[in-house]
Amino acid sequence: MKWNASSSVRLSTEFVHGKCTDFHLSGLDFFITEIPREVFTYSEEEPMQFAEARADVYPYLLVNIGSGVSMVKVSGPRQYERVGGTSLGGGTFWGILSLLTGARTFDEMLKMAEAGDNSGVDMLVGDIYGTGYSKIGLKSTTIASTFGKVFKMKRVAERNAEDGEGLSHADSEDDAELAGFRVEDMSRSLLFAISNNIGQIAYLQSEKHALQHIYFGGSFIRGHTQTMNTLSYAIKFWSKGEKQAYFLRHEGYLGAVGAFLKRQPKNWGRRNSLEDAGFQRVATSREQVNASTNKAEP
Amino acid sequence: MKWNASSSVRLSTEFVHGKCTDFHLSGLDFFITEIPREVFTYSEEEPMQFAEARADVYPYLLVNIGSGVSMVKVSGPRQYERVGGTSLGGGTFWGILSLLTGARTFDEMLKMAEAGDNSGVDMLVGDIYGTGYSKIGLKSTTIASTFGKVFKMKRVAERNAEDGEGLSHADSEDDAELAGFRVEDMSRSLLFAISNNIGQIAYLQSEKHALQHIYFGGSFIRGHTQTMNTLSYAIKFWSKGEKQAYFLRHEGYLGAVGAFLKRQPKNWGRRNSLEDAGFQRVATSREQVNASTNKAEP
Repeated sequence: MKWNASSSVRLSTEFVHGKCTDFHLSGLDFFITEIPREVFTYSEEEPMQFAEARADVYPYLLVNIGSGVSMVKVSGPRQYERVGGTSLGGGTFWGILSLLTGARTFDEMLKMAEAGDNSGVDMLVGDIYGTGYSKIGLKSTTIASTFGKVFKMKRVAERNAEDGEGLSHADSEDDAELAGFRVEDMSRSLLFAISNNIGQIAYLQSEKHALQHIYFGGSFIRGHTQTMNTLSYAIKFWSKGEKQAYFLRHEGYLGAVGAFLKRQPKNWGRRNSLEDAGFQRVATSREQVNASTNKAEP
Repeated sequence: MKWNASSSVRLSTEFVHGKCTDFHLSGLDFFITEIPREVFTYSEEEPMQFAEARADVYPYLLVNIGSGVSMVKVSGPRQYERVGGTSLGGGTFWGILSLLTGARTFDEMLKMAEAGDNSGVDMLVGDIYGTGYSKIGLKSTTIASTFGKVFKMKRVAERNAEDGEGLSHADSEDDAELAGFRVEDMSRSLLFAISNNIGQIAYLQSEKHALQHIYFGGSFIRGHTQTMNTLSYAIKFWSKGEKQAYFLRHEGYLGAVGAFLKRQPKNWGRRNSLEDAGFQRVATSREQVNASTNKAEP
């Protein structure tokens, strides 16, 4: 899947911009409530477990990860409020990695991340204690400091150089190579850091606003299993298993479907356009659709 | 001020490790409650405004920013719990910048940040809309995506190169230079991103645990005005002006003073060692000290 310039900019624009959000949210409501096998949870052990469609969809938290991240509290049809977000999103991943690794596409970066081991650049709890620190619930593999090992290892390399045992650090040389850092490890570290961070903030926002369900969407996610896995892990970890991350199969079509639902031609399909119906809500469940007297179908 | 290898590692170790945290917290309690002109708030407009010493210090949130970040809820003397943290801390700032810019010391990086303009690499709300987006409370200078402009500008550079109008992108060339990104701008961007992010998470944790006061400490902060300014801004922004970030003048001495208070030689100074006193609390205010019958002074 390509990280497309125009689409990533468009997405973040759409999600900060109210009018477009209407489209997305109408589309999202439609998918969540009416399409079977649409909403799913994800983990490495249990990839893509479909969730039951729910009629009582509101309120929920929508986390859209484009170049930046927007978190939107959705209280009802056309009732939403941007409650937060973070500037650490897909653009940060792309920007830093393109400068560090020379990679050119999002695909390339994810492929590197897949082949990487974040412990090559991250300082883990185990690096500090030699073991986990169970008293406060930290596993030895918990990341204590993203890219924190760069500091430590550069010092070692420099000390060795001073002692005449290692390579010298002339300015013209490639520092990353010298200190032995792999671009794959950097990619994985940054993917983990950004996904974990979004997961934690999303969880905390959902707590603050008393929202049980958290849906993730946006170009940073679209089907990327590592990203979904990390986001899911973060939500489970921070909520102590009480909340889950939800994803949507047709996430890429929210805007288009929402726009269609709002402005569909008269007498097209079995429901009226949302625009015609004014602020009338698109039926909130399959049952309501079936029971609707609004059908234009024969 | 130098970012010292051993101290940064030591700090993060201390704050994940319970025993050492005891020292820090004893020291922190002592400074907060007993030392005048110790706790202060900071902003560019009003640098270093001292806060009144308070007797009702508990509960509070302590945010320690070393190579990683720990957030500790302190409910009383020796009563604390690690409620959260983030791996995006001082080690991340140092690690990424040392790889991107070749800078070797924390000082060097902060100096670059001071001379930088984050809009050189960050995508701002104004870059997307051409103006602020007041409907949802975003200023035009709000950072939409950290390093998000790298993506956009690299695309432009590549398009120009394809059209024969710009520089070519041979792999051996310095990409950062080619695309026109300044190391100063990168440094400022990363300083903002990390401080903002910690500020937001600290605010959300303080909300979740109903803590009114947030104290910041650790080697990432120690007196650095840009960092304090960004953290303060983040707390004010997210709390809509209801909370403030507090800093300590003698923050670097918490551990030492706490250790001394706990294990001071018998009959040294006007109070007994905390260790001798068992779990007895160090007097919580100057008044209590003055009223104390425990004085060893003549």
